Amino acid sequence: MISVHLESGRVSIARRSKPRRPRGFALLRLLRAGICNTDLELQRGYYGFKGTPGHEFVAEVIDADAPVWIGKRVVGEINLACGKCDWCARGLGRHCPKRTVLGIVKHPGAFSEYFTLPERNLLEAPPKLATDHAVFTEPVAAACEILEQVKIPKNAPVAVLGDGKLGLLISQVLAVHGAKVHQFGRHKEKLAIAELAGVTGEVAKGALPVCAYDFVVDATGSAEGLRAAVGMTRPRGTLVMKSTVAGTVSIDTAPIIVNEITLVGSRCGRFQPALDLLRRGKIHVEEMIQGRMALGQAPEAFEMAARKGMLKVLLDG
Amino acid sequence: MISVHLESGRVSIARRSKPRRPRGFALLRLLRAGICNTDLELQRGYYGFKGTPGHEFVAEVIDADAPVWIGKRVVGEINLACGKCDWCARGLGRHCPKRTVLGIVKHPGAFSEYFTLPERNLLEAPPKLATDHAVFTEPVAAACEILEQVKIPKNAPVAVLGDGKLGLLISQVLAVHGAKVHQFGRHKEKLAIAELAGVTGEVAKGALPVCAYDFVVDATGSAEGLRAAVGMTRPRGTLVMKSTVAGTVSIDTAPIIVNEITLVGSRCGRFQPALDLLRRGKIHVEEMIQGRMALGQAPEAFEMAARKGMLKVLLDG
Repeated sequence: MISVHLESGRVSIARRSKPRRPRGFALLRLLRAGICNTDLELQRGYYGFKGTPGHEFVAEVIDADAPVWIGKRVVGEINLACGKCDWCARGLGRHCPKRTVLGIVKHPGAFSEYFTLPERNLLEAPPKLATDHAVFTEPVAAACEILEQVKIPKNAPVAVLGDGKLGLLISQVLAVHGAKVHQFGRHKEKLAIAELAGVTGEVAKGALPVCAYDFVVDATGSAEGLRAAVGMTRPRGTLVMKSTVAGTVSIDTAPIIVNEITLVGSRCGRFQPALDLLRRGKIHVEEMIQGRMALGQAPEAFEMAARKGMLKVLLDG
Repeated sequence: MISVHLESGRVSIARRSKPRRPRGFALLRLLRAGICNTDLELQRGYYGFKGTPGHEFVAEVIDADAPVWIGKRVVGEINLACGKCDWCARGLGRHCPKRTVLGIVKHPGAFSEYFTLPERNLLEAPPKLATDHAVFTEPVAAACEILEQVKIPKNAPVAVLGDGKLGLLISQVLAVHGAKVHQFGRHKEKLAIAELAGVTGEVAKGALPVCAYDFVVDATGSAEGLRAAVGMTRPRGTLVMKSTVAGTVSIDTAPIIVNEITLVGSRCGRFQPALDLLRRGKIHVEEMIQGRMALGQAPEAFEMAARKGMLKVLLDG
């Protein structure tokens, strides 16, 4: 089978033998995968990654302990938790200290003809949900995670900074939740996608509003974005940190302390709410697909995905 | 009258005329003041401060609109709020955007024979509470603020980093609240003060525990301290940022996001709970007093307060 291999910032295609399925794991055949900013960060050295990346996928179950899974079209939670610790008992396997993470931490990823994942991580893609859309389940789940961490009242004004892939999903998820979302970005045509879900887009030129929002989400992926987000948050307000940036960020802690701002780090989320939103057609993902290549063209696909302003690039399995 | 004057990092004694009392304000005569780390930060250039500092005080009311105040021994909330805006209506005048702040922002401070403060800011010091102890109301209120912002269950393990003045008050307030407080510091004899209130002190040597506490308070006043505090916080845990540090801090946002940590900036608090704790003798402040000088010796007192490892230095009015 062919697999994508990432090492020292270089993406290549490797020929490997089909993986063995450990007990409790399903053997999956890739149908569709998405290239995420985290994959690009891994390429830039985040986690000192080496191996097969990929964690946004839709696959067909080829083999599994439970025969009911075989032949099903599935998505899957990317954290492989121990299932025994306190975190797992609380339903927070995403924080299990022993976890590995599909295509990110010590478990070969989905950019491969075949790969494995624990059966308990799988969710069936609803029959009417297009494969191209189901592949967005993981990033939509990451957006939904915000609502699990922060109580945002319906009708509350929320600012989302950044109009990249994650920013567009976050603004839509929050708008569908009922918040009044104002999204600040750099690209009119990207903001237009979120506007389909009821978001108000604004191409940010010059000064951003100061101390203006009780809820701010930083999805810029940049140090400047995070600093701007602090400035936009009202006293006693909440700033959700949603970007993965390699390296350190210099921030002035004084406004955070003086204005008693709460910063909330936010990562992966539960898949079910995301799958529900996608099934109901609430999140405009079709418009976010800007590239499509075969798995064997992954090196070119990574290049395309890294281009400035590019939204989602899919890989066909 | 004499006043302390701070300008370009230099502390001097100035002779000024007694301030006029605007309507709604009390004219106060200083009985006792405390030098706070914020005063030392002001000296280092925080807020570009110039004028009379001082915000920890006990005073006698000399004149006021309401005759009942006259002759009373008082402490006072340091934020002078407009009383009309939404923040003020919510009882959060501490965040009023039009506020001035005693001895910090555009209102002459308490390091002066006479000074003024709105009558609504005043609280009477309970007769049995020593003046030396009542002067700690403001920093104890800042410690109490944590409990107003973060729900810390009784018996919850909490780590407090730093054994300076604020750190010792925070650990004691949290211990009195019922938390199991573990305080990491550098000075056995300082930690011993907090231990009187039931805190477990530990002289930090080498590596600190990693991902070990659901609640962490950084009171180190240093960038390294804040970074260490992030590392000590468990996934989904809360880190309270309590230090005022001039300048920016470089932090790695990755562990905050990956572990979904909540950072809470925390500043001033309500005076009443603090005054109650002090009246009930729950907070060991007597042991924290390490220097005492007359107001006219403020330049020497500032020098003493800035010495490494020094706890509270008081000024006698």
